Amino acid sequence: MTKIAAIVGGGVIGGGWAARFALMGWNVQVFDPDPEAKRKISEVMAGAERALPMLYEAPLRARGKISFHQTIAEAVSGAQYVQESVPERLELKQKVYAELQAHCSEDVVLASSTSGFKPSELQEGAARPGQIIVAHPFNPVYLLPLAELVPGVNGAPETVEKAREILIDIGMYPLHVKAEIDAHIADRFLEAVWREALWLVKDGIATTEEIDDAIRYGFGLRWAQMGLFETYRVAGGEAGMKHFMAQFGPALKWPWTKLMDVPEFNEELVDLIAGQSDAQSGHMSIRELERLRDDNLVAILRALKGQNAGAGKLIADHDATLRAPLGGEVPLVTVRRTVPVDWTDVNGHMNEGRYGQVFSDASEELMFHVGADRDYIAAGNSYFTAETGVKYVLETHAGEGFYVETRVALGQGKKLRLLHEMKRAKDDALLATCDQFLLHVSLETRKSCPPLPQVLQAVEALAAKHAD
Amino acid sequence: MTKIAAIVGGGVIGGGWAARFALMGWNVQVFDPDPEAKRKISEVMAGAERALPMLYEAPLRARGKISFHQTIAEAVSGAQYVQESVPERLELKQKVYAELQAHCSEDVVLASSTSGFKPSELQEGAARPGQIIVAHPFNPVYLLPLAELVPGVNGAPETVEKAREILIDIGMYPLHVKAEIDAHIADRFLEAVWREALWLVKDGIATTEEIDDAIRYGFGLRWAQMGLFETYRVAGGEAGMKHFMAQFGPALKWPWTKLMDVPEFNEELVDLIAGQSDAQSGHMSIRELERLRDDNLVAILRALKGQNAGAGKLIADHDATLRAPLGGEVPLVTVRRTVPVDWTDVNGHMNEGRYGQVFSDASEELMFHVGADRDYIAAGNSYFTAETGVKYVLETHAGEGFYVETRVALGQGKKLRLLHEMKRAKDDALLATCDQFLLHVSLETRKSCPPLPQVLQAVEALAAKHAD
Repeated sequence: MTKIAAIVGGGVIGGGWAARFALMGWNVQVFDPDPEAKRKISEVMAGAERALPMLYEAPLRARGKISFHQTIAEAVSGAQYVQESVPERLELKQKVYAELQAHCSEDVVLASSTSGFKPSELQEGAARPGQIIVAHPFNPVYLLPLAELVPGVNGAPETVEKAREILIDIGMYPLHVKAEIDAHIADRFLEAVWREALWLVKDGIATTEEIDDAIRYGFGLRWAQMGLFETYRVAGGEAGMKHFMAQFGPALKWPWTKLMDVPEFNEELVDLIAGQSDAQSGHMSIRELERLRDDNLVAILRALKGQNAGAGKLIADHDATLRAPLGGEVPLVTVRRTVPVDWTDVNGHMNEGRYGQVFSDASEELMFHVGADRDYIAAGNSYFTAETGVKYVLETHAGEGFYVETRVALGQGKKLRLLHEMKRAKDDALLATCDQFLLHVSLETRKSCPPLPQVLQAVEALAAKHAD
Repeated sequence: MTKIAAIVGGGVIGGGWAARFALMGWNVQVFDPDPEAKRKISEVMAGAERALPMLYEAPLRARGKISFHQTIAEAVSGAQYVQESVPERLELKQKVYAELQAHCSEDVVLASSTSGFKPSELQEGAARPGQIIVAHPFNPVYLLPLAELVPGVNGAPETVEKAREILIDIGMYPLHVKAEIDAHIADRFLEAVWREALWLVKDGIATTEEIDDAIRYGFGLRWAQMGLFETYRVAGGEAGMKHFMAQFGPALKWPWTKLMDVPEFNEELVDLIAGQSDAQSGHMSIRELERLRDDNLVAILRALKGQNAGAGKLIADHDATLRAPLGGEVPLVTVRRTVPVDWTDVNGHMNEGRYGQVFSDASEELMFHVGADRDYIAAGNSYFTAETGVKYVLETHAGEGFYVETRVALGQGKKLRLLHEMKRAKDDALLATCDQFLLHVSLETRKSCPPLPQVLQAVEALAAKHAD
């Protein structure tokens, strides 16, 4: 049965939650009194449905439906999970939670996107405070995995556990923050940096663009993969973390920052920053910037996925749970996915080299299907490709869905020949074909040898089946 | 003539500078009284020579030599650029600058890696203060492009200009910081975050690992590509930067951080953090962590390069300056590079799909050589690959150098057939071959058509030459 999430409050954050849930197979029921909510959410969804599937090698689950509702009661009907993203006003939020609890049973998770309030503040005066927790996401919600999960002292362990499972199910990383504190964890860092940045701009030390460059050409690249402490541990070198701290610690006493002070937040400062930001990025629309941001995030996340590191490891692990065993159909559908942004080239279409990767993935899926899986490889056996012939029939572009049909044309001893057809998802048009000849090898000798009996049998059976 | 950089003070930072200069073709002369300097620098160099070439599609210049010297006078002999990275003690640095100026002519750039001192402090009492500036890099210096270039009021414009050119020459991004300020720009942010992180650990809100996760699964991914202000501009949505500031600005008045205060830096705090860091990362040696960090940075930078965005655009631009036109040899050497980390697969060797990319790059180089370059493509013409046949002969692995020899087997009207041989750099062993058939197309109709006359002539000439 399709699971249901209710989204209370749309906008950029609520819309991001809606898109992520729907693309991960949940039906989504939205309540937002804003007459523009439907348009805003569908715009977020358009970005999400382009970008999110690009992170995965496995096909995503069948998409859930997004529906819009006139009342909270209607929106939460049948929902296992409610995500509240209404404006940051405590009395409004408390009113919403009162209404949510009037219409939800106690086993439903009620989670807030708030960064400004602690869970104890949301829970105050509630009928069932244990049901209310914070699940604070980061924009764009459909691409960044982090959600700070903050129950406070009153959040019920069952609620936390349920929320954790659901967030993992939709590909997020629930970071359980054990003590409640203003702004949770990450936003405290953002706030510290934001304050310092305002000073630097106000005092004319640097422009908004120079500050962005100082971040993205330097420590931003470090933080995208290791964060703060592990980066410094490495910087400390052989002498270790204590040595690093001995070097860096005393800097705490130096008057390096203006953080003791808060810049006056007046119109002049807003104009200064908005003006510099226009000079820096005003030549692009917000839609174009969003697309740039999403393409960059997809490329970075896929790069980290290739290394099985950082946020890329989270996606790889989630990908594995989405991977279904191949069916018994003839020919076998071995790959089903969309073309990610990092696969296109100067001609604006998928680069010829990536076809090789598609067919390599197709043969890897077939290998797994016949039992030549990771364990088999770890035990010292594998198939290596000896020769491929690819014919490029039609162009394909980033975001386009496709699938690969694979036939075993020969499966005899150490020899295996596969015929792949790559087809466009929307109309089954043939995009490319591949004739692939593989040899079974021993990973110890790096020389060809017969496969183990159970793999050989499976290959022979497929060859016989596909010969018809 | 090979250019010379002097490195005064080795260690992680000085060693990173030495490695970057040497890999970019400069001879490097090191002075460091530490008897371990040679070993330390050669360890940094081992990491650098593996990782840095992976960022480039073009071959790097012939590597410069690193030599070690007993005196500053000897180390700076013949140098155009001196990078000082001695310990952060002002009287020591001033003594070093006095000696440097005694042995360097006034047209040599004297740059400091300091984060703790302003240029005016280094220049104080110097014979020629205008020659001394700050060029503050970020670890690992051989991968991260940022260098904060801070001349202060006394730094000479000629010195800044010379330093800028040299830093660009070695693939860095000199960020000219116009006003001098303690800690320059980036370290002020790092300091703000570090302080806040110490509080969170000290107060038991989060562990070092939780803080790292809060960064690398969330805003770290944003900052690696856009930095702070552009990210927020996008978050503000259609309403723009002013709207974003109106939402976020008031938060400045909330008591969100402990930044007004400095945690006591005592042994207890050091033990707490070092202990958590051991629990988080202690199962890996510093060498292993460095390797992980470098592989991740290479993968992220290559991903951004593919998008021509952020720090990846800097590398793409630098790459273009390193690209030499193809020679007149038969066959043509079209590709010369190392296998980057993002090209290997579950079998531990270069994935078959990446061979397709190598041969695609090879044909693109040949296209450029015959005049079918970016301008030609922008004007609506290109070659599309119709068919390829690849034979995989030997395995190859990350970090291994290789080159591709290309022959034009047929160049007739709209038809072009290329034969590529991919060979290992160290012993010229054949790794793979590719038989590639291309058709000239109009990018408007996406249908085949004859090339423009000058391209056709060049193709025919090559075909005739390669037929011998």
